[in-house]
Amino acid sequence: MESTTLYALFFFFHLYLSGSSAMQHGKKTQHQPCKHLKFFFHDIIYNGKNAENATSAIVAAPEGSNRTILAPQNHFGNVVVFDDPITLDNNLHSIPVGRAQGMYLYDKKDTFYSWLGFTFLLNNTDHQGTINFIGADPILVKTRDISVVGGTGDFAMARGIATVMTDAFEGEVYFRLHVDIKLYECW
Amino acid sequence: MESTTLYALFFFFHLYLSGSSAMQHGKKTQHQPCKHLKFFFHDIIYNGKNAENATSAIVAAPEGSNRTILAPQNHFGNVVVFDDPITLDNNLHSIPVGRAQGMYLYDKKDTFYSWLGFTFLLNNTDHQGTINFIGADPILVKTRDISVVGGTGDFAMARGIATVMTDAFEGEVYFRLHVDIKLYECW
Amino acid sequence: MESTTLYALFFFFHLYLSGSSAMQHGKKTQHQPCKHLKFFFHDIIYNGKNAENATSAIVAAPEGSNRTILAPQNHFGNVVVFDDPITLDNNLHSIPVGRAQGMYLYDKKDTFYSWLGFTFLLNNTDHQGTINFIGADPILVKTRDISVVGGTGDFAMARGIATVMTDAFEGEVYFRLHVDIKLYECW
Repeated sequence: MESTTLYALFFFFHLYLSGSSAMQHGKKTQHQPCKHLKFFFHDIIYNGKNAENATSAIVAAPEGSNRTILAPQNHFGNVVVFDDPITLDNNLHSIPVGRAQGMYLYDKKDTFYSWLGFTFLLNNTDHQGTINFIGADPILVKTRDISVVGGTGDFAMARGIATVMTDAFEGEVYFRLHVDIKLYECW
Repeated sequence: MESTTLYALFFFFHLYLSGSSAMQHGKKTQHQPCKHLKFFFHDIIYNGKNAENATSAIVAAPEGSNRTILAPQNHFGNVVVFDDPITLDNNLHSIPVGRAQGMYLYDKKDTFYSWLGFTFLLNNTDHQGTINFIGADPILVKTRDISVVGGTGDFAMARGIATVMTDAFEGEVYFRLHVDIKLYECW
Repeated sequence: MESTTLYALFFFFHLYLSGSSAMQHGKKTQHQPCKHLKFFFHDIIYNGKNAENATSAIVAAPEGSNRTILAPQNHFGNVVVFDDPITLDNNLHSIPVGRAQGMYLYDKKDTFYSWLGFTFLLNNTDHQGTINFIGADPILVKTRDISVVGGTGDFAMARGIATVMTDAFEGEVYFRLHVDIKLYECW
């Protein structure tokens, strides 16, 4: 075989490899999610009167405020522990497909900002496993992105980005979040 | 070189590449851990009388409960800060190989569930570095999986899954967890 | 084409592939950061008198201590919520390029150790996005490594290691951290 042919072959294979390389690395570098999930979850905060229905409670507060009323300055300093039902639609009374559990805290004095650390525990016919999230939530912004930092079960080793939207809120007792989860690393 | 030969070559190289591709992606797609570690850690919660021995303390609680007795409703709403010794065997008095530090919180009213955010700080002849964990812990389930979301030192950039088991508990003061850590991403 | 030529070709391509494989996996296995960022952030804790300037507040504390004075035993058990300005230099009064928001807690009785869970929200001409951190911070050690566990916007899917240094502290009210962020996974 002549060297020019060999060179041509190499050039050609190089192209071939470059093309296949993108495919091989697709999971890492392409921006198409390997899993895409959408859920709602519902938070009813304990206000001293709704023990039956409450799904969350204020457990820490800055000096001068208590644990049945969110702190006056945009709730700055409140830490809330929650165990919220996850549903497929926006109806609080739909059969839950899992629970959202963990904590959120309010961390800004001059507007509503929170910080989230929580887990989705999904346990239904479609999904068995957990998804772990952390991130900042500038509540008044329409869509906010947080990180999926890990998962277990069906979501083992997952990473991705979740877009959080406030779907509804009623005074300071109830809010409903829509979460659009795009996983870019899956097993 | 004839085009059929070229075609045959391509077909052959394609197989070759497909095979090597699996090998190249082994670290990512194979489910064999690159590191496998097992530890115990020991938590002694402060109850107002054991200041000397306590390794953790209740720092937040829902309205109506205090910080020396875990909250009545499955401890819902308690946040605990801890600095627990890590040992290689199940003996509280073995020489620690590191510390487990961070927080856990109880987040369910009708059974024992917790949420964990903590770090293993290992500092011994075998390991120098930290491992960062978050995840949900349904305490009464025999084995619970949480996420390893990062690490430093010997565990730089680590990701994986840790299986947590309650190895012992004594009333509401002492518990010991067995942690089986499988890292699937290592440097 | 003879089989020896074919063999030679394969051997040659194997080398070629091995070489390119390293390149293809560079992002994953090389230890050069894909992004390198340095910032300062400034924390002024609320002490009952500095409501105007304070950027953080004690929101949880162990039994026996309050929320305007850090707890006596190396602040063990204090949880602090913060919204701190991020600057490019070490001057508190420089124009912030973003905010550091989240929580830290003190988790060791016999020396100063903290545990961090927070987000950098960057919003300036250079960077638009968030970076999420967790990790242990043995405060008295000169440099401490924590994990970058995710990001959004310009930092979508980021992972890396951040080295934290105490750049200054004034009594128990003000401290300034220098954060050297090396991202090893970028989009």
